[in-house]
Amino acid sequence: MAYFSKHYHSPGTAPGTLISTSPTAGPASIHLIDYTEDSVEEERLATPRECQAYLERNTKTWIQVNGPVNVDTLRTLGDMFNLHDLALEDVLNSGQRPKLELYDDQLFIIAAMPVFQGNALEIVQISLFVGKNYLICLCPLEEDPFEPIRKRMLNPSNKRFASREIDYLLYALLDLITDSAFPVLETFGDKLEDMELELLEQPRKQTLSDIHRLKRELLLLRRVLWPQRELLTTLMRVEDPLINPDTLIYYRDCHDHSVQIIELLESFRDMATGMLDIYLSSISQRTNETMRVLTIIATIFIPLTFIVGVYGMNFQNPDSPWAMPELSWYYGYPMVWGLMIAITAGLVWFFKRRGWL
Amino acid sequence: MAYFSKHYHSPGTAPGTLISTSPTAGPASIHLIDYTEDSVEEERLATPRECQAYLERNTKTWIQVNGPVNVDTLRTLGDMFNLHDLALEDVLNSGQRPKLELYDDQLFIIAAMPVFQGNALEIVQISLFVGKNYLICLCPLEEDPFEPIRKRMLNPSNKRFASREIDYLLYALLDLITDSAFPVLETFGDKLEDMELELLEQPRKQTLSDIHRLKRELLLLRRVLWPQRELLTTLMRVEDPLINPDTLIYYRDCHDHSVQIIELLESFRDMATGMLDIYLSSISQRTNETMRVLTIIATIFIPLTFIVGVYGMNFQNPDSPWAMPELSWYYGYPMVWGLMIAITAGLVWFFKRRGWL
Amino acid sequence: MAYFSKHYHSPGTAPGTLISTSPTAGPASIHLIDYTEDSVEEERLATPRECQAYLERNTKTWIQVNGPVNVDTLRTLGDMFNLHDLALEDVLNSGQRPKLELYDDQLFIIAAMPVFQGNALEIVQISLFVGKNYLICLCPLEEDPFEPIRKRMLNPSNKRFASREIDYLLYALLDLITDSAFPVLETFGDKLEDMELELLEQPRKQTLSDIHRLKRELLLLRRVLWPQRELLTTLMRVEDPLINPDTLIYYRDCHDHSVQIIELLESFRDMATGMLDIYLSSISQRTNETMRVLTIIATIFIPLTFIVGVYGMNFQNPDSPWAMPELSWYYGYPMVWGLMIAITAGLVWFFKRRGWL
Amino acid sequence: MAYFSKHYHSPGTAPGTLISTSPTAGPASIHLIDYTEDSVEEERLATPRECQAYLERNTKTWIQVNGPVNVDTLRTLGDMFNLHDLALEDVLNSGQRPKLELYDDQLFIIAAMPVFQGNALEIVQISLFVGKNYLICLCPLEEDPFEPIRKRMLNPSNKRFASREIDYLLYALLDLITDSAFPVLETFGDKLEDMELELLEQPRKQTLSDIHRLKRELLLLRRVLWPQRELLTTLMRVEDPLINPDTLIYYRDCHDHSVQIIELLESFRDMATGMLDIYLSSISQRTNETMRVLTIIATIFIPLTFIVGVYGMNFQNPDSPWAMPELSWYYGYPMVWGLMIAITAGLVWFFKRRGWL
Amino acid sequence: MAYFSKHYHSPGTAPGTLISTSPTAGPASIHLIDYTEDSVEEERLATPRECQAYLERNTKTWIQVNGPVNVDTLRTLGDMFNLHDLALEDVLNSGQRPKLELYDDQLFIIAAMPVFQGNALEIVQISLFVGKNYLICLCPLEEDPFEPIRKRMLNPSNKRFASREIDYLLYALLDLITDSAFPVLETFGDKLEDMELELLEQPRKQTLSDIHRLKRELLLLRRVLWPQRELLTTLMRVEDPLINPDTLIYYRDCHDHSVQIIELLESFRDMATGMLDIYLSSISQRTNETMRVLTIIATIFIPLTFIVGVYGMNFQNPDSPWAMPELSWYYGYPMVWGLMIAITAGLVWFFKRRGWL
Repeated sequence: MAYFSKHYHSPGTAPGTLISTSPTAGPASIHLIDYTEDSVEEERLATPRECQAYLERNTKTWIQVNGPVNVDTLRTLGDMFNLHDLALEDVLNSGQRPKLELYDDQLFIIAAMPVFQGNALEIVQISLFVGKNYLICLCPLEEDPFEPIRKRMLNPSNKRFASREIDYLLYALLDLITDSAFPVLETFGDKLEDMELELLEQPRKQTLSDIHRLKRELLLLRRVLWPQRELLTTLMRVEDPLINPDTLIYYRDCHDHSVQIIELLESFRDMATGMLDIYLSSISQRTNETMRVLTIIATIFIPLTFIVGVYGMNFQNPDSPWAMPELSWYYGYPMVWGLMIAITAGLVWFFKRRGWL
Repeated sequence: MAYFSKHYHSPGTAPGTLISTSPTAGPASIHLIDYTEDSVEEERLATPRECQAYLERNTKTWIQVNGPVNVDTLRTLGDMFNLHDLALEDVLNSGQRPKLELYDDQLFIIAAMPVFQGNALEIVQISLFVGKNYLICLCPLEEDPFEPIRKRMLNPSNKRFASREIDYLLYALLDLITDSAFPVLETFGDKLEDMELELLEQPRKQTLSDIHRLKRELLLLRRVLWPQRELLTTLMRVEDPLINPDTLIYYRDCHDHSVQIIELLESFRDMATGMLDIYLSSISQRTNETMRVLTIIATIFIPLTFIVGVYGMNFQNPDSPWAMPELSWYYGYPMVWGLMIAITAGLVWFFKRRGWL
Repeated sequence: MAYFSKHYHSPGTAPGTLISTSPTAGPASIHLIDYTEDSVEEERLATPRECQAYLERNTKTWIQVNGPVNVDTLRTLGDMFNLHDLALEDVLNSGQRPKLELYDDQLFIIAAMPVFQGNALEIVQISLFVGKNYLICLCPLEEDPFEPIRKRMLNPSNKRFASREIDYLLYALLDLITDSAFPVLETFGDKLEDMELELLEQPRKQTLSDIHRLKRELLLLRRVLWPQRELLTTLMRVEDPLINPDTLIYYRDCHDHSVQIIELLESFRDMATGMLDIYLSSISQRTNETMRVLTIIATIFIPLTFIVGVYGMNFQNPDSPWAMPELSWYYGYPMVWGLMIAITAGLVWFFKRRGWL
Repeated sequence: MAYFSKHYHSPGTAPGTLISTSPTAGPASIHLIDYTEDSVEEERLATPRECQAYLERNTKTWIQVNGPVNVDTLRTLGDMFNLHDLALEDVLNSGQRPKLELYDDQLFIIAAMPVFQGNALEIVQISLFVGKNYLICLCPLEEDPFEPIRKRMLNPSNKRFASREIDYLLYALLDLITDSAFPVLETFGDKLEDMELELLEQPRKQTLSDIHRLKRELLLLRRVLWPQRELLTTLMRVEDPLINPDTLIYYRDCHDHSVQIIELLESFRDMATGMLDIYLSSISQRTNETMRVLTIIATIFIPLTFIVGVYGMNFQNPDSPWAMPELSWYYGYPMVWGLMIAITAGLVWFFKRRGWL
Repeated sequence: MAYFSKHYHSPGTAPGTLISTSPTAGPASIHLIDYTEDSVEEERLATPRECQAYLERNTKTWIQVNGPVNVDTLRTLGDMFNLHDLALEDVLNSGQRPKLELYDDQLFIIAAMPVFQGNALEIVQISLFVGKNYLICLCPLEEDPFEPIRKRMLNPSNKRFASREIDYLLYALLDLITDSAFPVLETFGDKLEDMELELLEQPRKQTLSDIHRLKRELLLLRRVLWPQRELLTTLMRVEDPLINPDTLIYYRDCHDHSVQIIELLESFRDMATGMLDIYLSSISQRTNETMRVLTIIATIFIPLTFIVGVYGMNFQNPDSPWAMPELSWYYGYPMVWGLMIAITAGLVWFFKRRGWL
């Protein structure tokens, strides 16, 4: 998770220049669903050219392009569907902020889907082109995240997709993208709870970098989720023939989820910031405790040692049995060593129990 | 009180899917009040089907569903009253943010009622469907919080409900929900005062987690009360035939309370944040005091001990009565031990009084 | 000054319920001024019923009700002047936020007047009802704060009140209420200056709770002054027959003062927050100094004591006059004690001067 | 620079009451410039009455009143030019926030000019009344800050003032007032740079109060510059016959400067706040270093001293030349003293170099 | 990088006064491109006068002035192209905030281009005048940053510039200026990552000033990039005949980049602020560790030393072989010295490994 993860062309490059940014970009796998009110057809295409056939039919077509896409594929799609150069550039230069562009008879949408890759948060850029009877969705992941929607479409008992325009499919995709923030936030919530417990009981040095890392990930998430919410607001209010009034209630629901996600995120950020304060307070508290132990022990022994020093303990009255008889004992010296070893062991045990050693 | 407490479906689930989220969801108990200008009738129904009879009459009907509701009950109600799938999904997936949805001839409202369950703050989601002559209110609590309103309705001398439309009943419910934040905030105010006293006098380690907990609860409260205020603002301004102009003054009063609640909440958050600073300052102050004690004692005794060390206290002039006569005393050695024990006891007593031991 | 100081009815209470919240509420003393263009009449009434006579005359009437008012008085006034139940409830439930309610031919205003009661800040709620030719002002204080205005009215050379409508009287009252924040802020300014001086020179433990208390009072003040400013803005812009265009310039002046007050308040809050930082920095600075003294003294004496320890100072060459001759002196031992007592006294004096003891 | 520096009348005073607030208020010196397209005339007047003559002529007149003005002068001017009572009150009660009041055929402007009086920042209130063919400018400073403008007007080759309406003169004055913040900010910038250098290299106790003082001055400046910017925005957009469209481009330029000033100011505040954090960090860092020195020295010598203590260094083998021969040397004792004095001197030198003494 | 880097005239200077602010200002080098739909011509001019010829032709002309420009050149250009005095003043007084001025048939734009000069961030002010068929661009750098655009124009296969109006050239320049923030932010991102690593592993004193410096540079960048974004927003929405609707999509893209840059910048500022907290926490953590080591060692040895002191280790029983036989050994004394040197060396090694020495 780098601080600066955006791809950009060197300043002064002509607009619409396409340069592949992914080393593994290939011809990409295309998964197509062609549907009308009465039938659904599923197809896997080898080259983008094959879409042409579906374009001419009077059906609705969902063209799903999975995996990093290369410049050729993109240019072919661009020519076939009349996609704008600047939009294609945005598809390749990942790290864009979510946005909605209205072209004459096309919508271009960039959305951001947060996923956990192993233990690290990653933001996947989903690019969507919506026309009157087609929807092109480009996703750089090899594994298709939209499989659950395809299953619902292919389910013969589900007539919702068939009976509605392409904007309902767009809603279904955006809803999945939006909702994918919920499991991510759930994970962050769990992390916060673990960290909180640790902080209040036994803060470790590692905790500091854990909090820092969490704050960075929340910041990263925030940078894409706010514009995504804005995008959904625009979509709800846009007056475009591609968006039908009867789908609006669904977009409203999706927007509502987006607002909830943002609010959760902001409160998580608040809590993470609060945790840093608690960490600092905890350490101050512990320093104070350490100081107190030192002060107590030193304060007790310093005057004693002074007194002992004064008398050099040379009590010399040979008549008195009270004049340091220990010094004349046979095992006096080893006994003193024994006493000292016992004290040392006791203190070491005490510090271990306190977690200081 | 978990960080992430929202119920959600796995991303990609079809919109309007109903899955029961409460393990104890049952058929729920329905408490119905049917009233006209002249009569009030109270009924407890065993199944939602029984509402049908009241629906057909030319009366106003309040259907109160208490306790966690199961999917069947909800679906029956949904069919009978023509409730939208997305709304029903929101009823089940608790943890929604308060909102108002306008359907053709129906209002759907989600409100949040803060209550203390034992010592922990909980946010109860109240779902309300309002039609021309019915109001359905779903509350997951077993015990009905709206009993005071029912008592007012059943009081024969009270003509307010009878003489007004269903929107006055809606106001009464929302007013109760809104005002239920006052006792909660009063409790928080008391906690803040206790904590403040403790902080300025004798901060304990526990205080830190108390402040943290309070901040979390205030954050949780804030997350629902802001949208609730927004909901009341919308309700005041909405142009819907279900809301009559002469009830507006009541909605305004309710909104006014909501604003007061928000302002109290925000100032409580400010104070709670300020308390953390004071905690930190107090600890720094105490560390400084501890340091001072140590420095004073050490600074006084270190040079003395040095001097004592220099002379080894071997004053040898046998003619001088001033040359450490104590060393020759009969009880010299035990007296020194007595002195040292006395000093130790004195210091221990001193530390105890300071609260250091 | 409690954190939660609002009076509220238990949730679910019928709107407009009147319950006296002040234990000392009595029938209240009414101070009435009845004036026309030509004459001014001053009267003290025993019961609210007596207002009736003035209501019927074609004059302007100012009804000032001082002291905590009981439910009966309020209900009588409510019936006579047709005051709304919700407004009357707000009069009794003190701790409201300032607001303006527009009724058909009446304005209802709640304003907040900050005063110092002894050393503690208090917010007094002033309730105002304005009709075509009357103004009712309810103030819970026993002593009438509006005496200066009454004096101006009764001054025969002052024609301003006589020649203008009732809205000029309303302005005069609101202007006094608004301006009463100036002396309060002046007091806060003085406190801030004292605290600042103390902080930069000799921070005491007490300073921390002083800053905290000041911040709380500023927060309390802020909670009422912001809505008060809003109220004045609304009053300036409202299109109501009760407010004449030629009084607008006065309302604008009053609003202008309100803005100045808010800005002063906000900058005071900024400074108070900054002072906490300085307090923390000061303590850190002092801890550092304490540490330095300890380190210097310990670092100098520790190696010396070590050397002294090595030789046990048993210089034994009997031929050398340099071999610790002090040990053989007649007054050697008392002289060493004298030296040590002198050092101790010197250090105690040094610490006293530094303020450490 | 007091926290509360506003003059105000006691609450309840009649609006428009004029009370002189400056002890040195005199009849003030009036500097008048009367100009038409063809001629410029400069005059110094003894009394405000003398303006009357110019008022009746068909010329443009700039009446500059310097020094604290007394109530009489103000009232005379007020009668002559028909100035509003509330405006005159604002002129006397200095410490107003910048504002623009639109009267029927007059503009009343209060502007704030920051100047350094010696080392302290002061905000000078400039009051401006603009009519169709006159501009009255009241400035409490004895020395006229607008001399550069007068020089430009009297310069015969400069036709700009002559060929334009009075609003161009107003622009020239406001431009000078606005730009006078630049040298002030430059001074603050220099102070910030000095402080930063000091902070990162050798923070002193004084630095803390320097930062605090700077923050206060920036806050003071901010309190007047924001409303001043607002005033310029209003002036740019106001539709008043006194402001001609062709002067707008100049007002826009002036507004632009104002925006730059605000942005500089805000970034200075940011930096000043950041410096406090750095101060705190520096002290923590130094405490840590001090601690380290103490810990190292103590940790090394404590075990050594212990060992030395164990053996009392009474090596007694008379046959061994290795048994502490130093003790028998002739100059043994003075040599040890010499060694100790050398160590002490070395350490004192070391601490001096570190800046600890 | 000074805190205050703006050039300004002394307050009261006549508007439009031109004073050269750069000591190296010369006649500047002019690089001209004259193009129509069919041809492109490139020219380097010695004096601004030579532009005259191109102005009269019916072609589009790009006049690029590189290097600090002197007053004469500017005045010549101003006369020739009818540029406003206030605009020319802004060109010379560098340090302006980005803005757009609309004149009758001209646009005047000030833009800010961030570049790294060596290791220090610098903001270069680019001034642009756009007329119907010319664009004048003044850049104080000696080296022309717009070379990539010139290359694209001179490339015969590129017809975009030729086929469009002058506003496309303006877009190309603004796009380059905007995008030049990307490499700058990338550098900052790298610095942040390095600093973060250092902070969490081994914070040095230098780190503090590094963070401070970074924050200052981000603040400086922010001060110009926000108004630059605003400028692009205005340009997108302005209704001016110079901006054609079909270029709008390009301006939108450029604006989009600007928004991304701002968001990156703001999140970088957030992270930099967070790093200061971590630095403080790290130091507190280390102080605590140092304290712990000291406390452990002191606490163990202090009681031991006390015991050793008590007995003075004068075990005197001559019959016991256990009575400190070490004292009689032949090499006893040197062996003790050896032991002490070994302990010292061990501790020094230990502290070195911990990074304390």
